[in-house]
Amino acid sequence: MKSIRHLIFYVLSALCGAASDISTLEKWGVFEIELKGPEQGNPFLDVRLGAVFTDGNATVLVPGFYDGAGVYKIRFSPGSTGDWRYETKSNRWELTGKLGRFAVTPPGPRNHGPVHVHNTYHFAYADSTPFKQIGTTIYNWTDTPDELQEETLRTLAAAPFNKVRMLLTPQPTPYQNRFAPPRWPFVGTPPSQWDFTRFNPDYFRHIEARIEQLGALGIEADVILFNPYGKFGFETMDAVSDERYVRYIVARLGAYHNIWWSLANEYDFLRTKTDADWDRLGTLLQQCDPHQRLRSIHNGSIIFDHNKPWITHVSMQNGAAVEEPGRAEMYRGVWRKPVVYDEVKYEGVTQYRWGNLTGQEMVHRFWCGTVAGTYVGHGDYFSTFEEDTWTSFGGKLSGQSAPRLAFLRKILEESPAQGIDPIDKWQDVNTGGVSGLYYLTYFGQSTPPEWRFKLYKNGVSEGQRYQVEIIDTWNMTVTPVEGDFVTKKMDNYYYSDTSGRVVRLPSNPGIAIRVRRIGEDGKLAVTVLPND
Amino acid sequence: MKSIRHLIFYVLSALCGAASDISTLEKWGVFEIELKGPEQGNPFLDVRLGAVFTDGNATVLVPGFYDGAGVYKIRFSPGSTGDWRYETKSNRWELTGKLGRFAVTPPGPRNHGPVHVHNTYHFAYADSTPFKQIGTTIYNWTDTPDELQEETLRTLAAAPFNKVRMLLTPQPTPYQNRFAPPRWPFVGTPPSQWDFTRFNPDYFRHIEARIEQLGALGIEADVILFNPYGKFGFETMDAVSDERYVRYIVARLGAYHNIWWSLANEYDFLRTKTDADWDRLGTLLQQCDPHQRLRSIHNGSIIFDHNKPWITHVSMQNGAAVEEPGRAEMYRGVWRKPVVYDEVKYEGVTQYRWGNLTGQEMVHRFWCGTVAGTYVGHGDYFSTFEEDTWTSFGGKLSGQSAPRLAFLRKILEESPAQGIDPIDKWQDVNTGGVSGLYYLTYFGQSTPPEWRFKLYKNGVSEGQRYQVEIIDTWNMTVTPVEGDFVTKKMDNYYYSDTSGRVVRLPSNPGIAIRVRRIGEDGKLAVTVLPND
Repeated sequence: MKSIRHLIFYVLSALCGAASDISTLEKWGVFEIELKGPEQGNPFLDVRLGAVFTDGNATVLVPGFYDGAGVYKIRFSPGSTGDWRYETKSNRWELTGKLGRFAVTPPGPRNHGPVHVHNTYHFAYADSTPFKQIGTTIYNWTDTPDELQEETLRTLAAAPFNKVRMLLTPQPTPYQNRFAPPRWPFVGTPPSQWDFTRFNPDYFRHIEARIEQLGALGIEADVILFNPYGKFGFETMDAVSDERYVRYIVARLGAYHNIWWSLANEYDFLRTKTDADWDRLGTLLQQCDPHQRLRSIHNGSIIFDHNKPWITHVSMQNGAAVEEPGRAEMYRGVWRKPVVYDEVKYEGVTQYRWGNLTGQEMVHRFWCGTVAGTYVGHGDYFSTFEEDTWTSFGGKLSGQSAPRLAFLRKILEESPAQGIDPIDKWQDVNTGGVSGLYYLTYFGQSTPPEWRFKLYKNGVSEGQRYQVEIIDTWNMTVTPVEGDFVTKKMDNYYYSDTSGRVVRLPSNPGIAIRVRRIGEDGKLAVTVLPND
Repeated sequence: MKSIRHLIFYVLSALCGAASDISTLEKWGVFEIELKGPEQGNPFLDVRLGAVFTDGNATVLVPGFYDGAGVYKIRFSPGSTGDWRYETKSNRWELTGKLGRFAVTPPGPRNHGPVHVHNTYHFAYADSTPFKQIGTTIYNWTDTPDELQEETLRTLAAAPFNKVRMLLTPQPTPYQNRFAPPRWPFVGTPPSQWDFTRFNPDYFRHIEARIEQLGALGIEADVILFNPYGKFGFETMDAVSDERYVRYIVARLGAYHNIWWSLANEYDFLRTKTDADWDRLGTLLQQCDPHQRLRSIHNGSIIFDHNKPWITHVSMQNGAAVEEPGRAEMYRGVWRKPVVYDEVKYEGVTQYRWGNLTGQEMVHRFWCGTVAGTYVGHGDYFSTFEEDTWTSFGGKLSGQSAPRLAFLRKILEESPAQGIDPIDKWQDVNTGGVSGLYYLTYFGQSTPPEWRFKLYKNGVSEGQRYQVEIIDTWNMTVTPVEGDFVTKKMDNYYYSDTSGRVVRLPSNPGIAIRVRRIGEDGKLAVTVLPND
């Protein structure tokens, strides 16, 4: 019945749409409907608006939003090519029943679409390209002077990061003694004279422009809806205002393909909300987002119940958890979802113990997370004056980890598409990969003089050939070990090399071993995806 | 309304009960009603029986069970002293409407009642005595020849264990080549000709006797309802038979105050049930147990969702998680429930890598779990011939850990009643205790030459006095460090000793430091329970 209604609607709108009006856009681009409507009263409260989009196959109801000055918009990102039609729905005559159509063309070469969960613990773009997360945090970069924001974008263009965590509302910091945020999300004045029923479209237009620029750089925008860093008053909104805010954010930003929703940062430090509030807002986020972007909630000290169905992946703060791979693995199995250690302390120099990692320690944490089958986020917190740090405001990176994370990213991009999983969980915590195909063993801060070639039995049989390389994670070198290694059954659990070969290791910390299967054709077998 | 009905029932049963019949039992003892009833048909299926017990205050509906040969029983363990009355309910005239009364006296000195969850992450007996779990596993000890069972009880009487995990149905093992289990839980013959509608009362009477004996030794019986160790056919029961089995077990065994329910061992290895089945059976366990004993489910490789409301505490198998304290802590915060690492590999010598721990490694795991605010279970698996090991069948302990676990138990019994929690989670993973009162720092396999007196700021202020002791966890010594340590603010995070004192440590692994506050009266302040 549903599909028949859709078909009728499709035919009707095909008849009504004027052929000459057809605009085109790329798949996963943003199609925007702009309409003039009422300005009187409070349009944010009084006017309901949305549109039904269909390509004759999928049908999507997309909420619209008021953009100020009598302008209303509806944004939709189509997930398939071909002809699309729409019809607007509103409780105002001037906004309802508008019909239109547009053509969606294949995506350009750098457009892989939105990221989604893939293979339980991993991510991929909509076009199946693997997404190997190397994140960073720049909380308030959109609140700084324009020249600093431009510098931030230049830094990102040269940096390895493919995801940025950022706040959607300003936080007060010492930095603002020099300049206050130039815009606010609501009509009103700080610190707490806000009209939460009236958004400030300028504020969000600015953020959208920055999100688009991140997208052009191939960077996901993990936008944080709520944060505990008061006291501007946003933390005291009532339930209705919270929900209106969530709906407005989703309607405005959700069509950008690089959007991820982070419901809150350090949710448990926001003392004005309960776990039940977060669950209600997270469920709303899931229900009101036609684009179904990724959704998470980030903890301070108390871990959220990530089994909640609205949570797509775990966004974890726990620096200790990535000090060694055995810990990093543990949260994975608990929730059977991807784990992103979004906050693992920052590389930096500061009086705070959460911002004092050396570059080596930061890189080490990424590698621990990697071989455990999880993902890690970076921060850079060198308090040169006040709080003028990358992770608070962007600008320049001061740390030493970024080039090494670029090196790791390259390693990851050469790794199997289905992602790195523990090979022998709870037995060999230092090794991740894909059984019988690809192994990454990370020795961390220990410096064993040698490594005996040894593979856990899963996926392995006698006579398989492997290439072994020594990776120096800090000095960014990959050194092949001469000659192939050939498997031979060793005992009930392991295979060794036929001639018992041993690999001599460098004496510095941060060494890893990469073992890759050589196919029958003599080529590396990394692109085989047996589990996919 | 409810309370009025209770009162009427109380008065009525007080009038009807014959004063001369009054029997007495200790609080938390087992009151048993025995009735003669129908033998024809299948009483396990045809007869419903229960009794409502009340002391005029609490009212408890307790299910009964068929014990064979026309005998029906209802077992109830009262949680308060005074006069109790009951009335039976049944769908058979000869079993329904029986009235009676009994008097409950205060518990004897060794009777602390059932164990329940206390202070989120810990356990206590019903009389508030802390329960510091030092568990072991003896899967099939009740299936062995009587002389071996008696030897097991003698071993337990001299061992440190206060909880035993045991299977409620037999598992086939090489041991049974020498003698098959003497009884079976159902009528029928192995391997799979069972009538699941007819229990074998003899089988359960034997288990009950053993559970009582464990209770007399002060040992909790963590009984495992389902296990994957086929193939006797119990693993293929249908849903109705599973539920009947759960109800029968609960009715028979639930009144013993030392019962804990472990729904399954290695639940995920039982390929004939789904997560939804376990959730249904766990929920049933919660609903049909008037005594509300502790409930858990134990994993193989896949971790269960321990947020399920029927789960009272986490029963974890993960040996790697207690190799160092930083890992052990991680599951605690996930579920905000007590974590018992019931299976951490076994002390032993065997071809299997899950049974090859040295005594030192076993003791190390207990200490890792302890300072992380969790609890650990022991196993002893020396395959002297076939599978004649403690953990399979009881008998004698062959390992070296037990005396060291007795030493740990003594340390725990001297620790604060509210339990050991991480002092500075994710920062100092080696230290657990109660802030400002009691600290236990465990150095594990590392052997630092000295320890600088340093306490995290929570609960600490300047001028507090502390006693420091060096604990050798393997050699079982406690060596006081001469002179008090007096606190002085060191920086934003820590307090040191006023004169910067440093404690020299022994050079062997397995060393811990115990720091206890000295009260104003010069006595150790350990018995102060600020969080309780």
